Amino acid sequence: MSEIKASTLSDEEQIRAVIEAWLQASRAGDLPTLLNLMTEDVIFLTPGNKPMRRDDFSNAFKTMSGAIAIEGHPDVQEITITDDLAVCWNFLDIMITPRAGGDSMRRSGNILTVFRRGADGQWRIWRDANMLASV
Amino acid sequence: MSEIKASTLSDEEQIRAVIEAWLQASRAGDLPTLLNLMTEDVIFLTPGNKPMRRDDFSNAFKTMSGAIAIEGHPDVQEITITDDLAVCWNFLDIMITPRAGGDSMRRSGNILTVFRRGADGQWRIWRDANMLASV
Repeated sequence: MSEIKASTLSDEEQIRAVIEAWLQASRAGDLPTLLNLMTEDVIFLTPGNKPMRRDDFSNAFKTMSGAIAIEGHPDVQEITITDDLAVCWNFLDIMITPRAGGDSMRRSGNILTVFRRGADGQWRIWRDANMLASV
Repeated sequence: MSEIKASTLSDEEQIRAVIEAWLQASRAGDLPTLLNLMTEDVIFLTPGNKPMRRDDFSNAFKTMSGAIAIEGHPDVQEITITDDLAVCWNFLDIMITPRAGGDSMRRSGNILTVFRRGADGQWRIWRDANMLASV
């Protein structure tokens, strides 16, 4: 599990590092790192689905990460920090490839993520609105 | 154009009042009130579309409000306030009815909205991630 070195980075740099670490861990199938980058009470929101909580995420990731590889490219539009809460508008482009072979699927779109800074100083995903669509 | 009386309400009550005023103005086709309930630099995010700014919203609303009636029912899940920024997770159910007659369309889903409090004390929509889907 990788650690984010927070001490020498600005808040915005720390949040950008969390986003990069998230995509890196997604690619690597590294669930412990992903779980460390979200709060205990995280909520992931997507169109047409129920809100996904920490355990839902964990279960879904375990099911999917053996079957597919996810490669994501973020294009951060803005990060706004107020106290221990940060709002990030990101444009994300991801490629989903079946590990058994077959066509890749590309999805892209906007994500609105709210991060919270924990008592340990680490920024984590707290609320996430994912509006990715097939392209 | 209706005014929200802010002085005697808590921040959370003010934000709930903004949400109600927004839905009421949507129903009434009252664009000036809607424009007063969003910041100058508002961004509306939806799946599969480009980010919509204030002028885009205004143009789209003028085009649509003569053709359809929108009736929305909010079910606020949480409001979290930090300084002059508030994060609201809402579940919204809307019915879209053509004014010329014809079948209504129902859409529902989660919305993650970030409100900002202006120098005038009024809370306004600043970032909005709309994940409504057809049901």
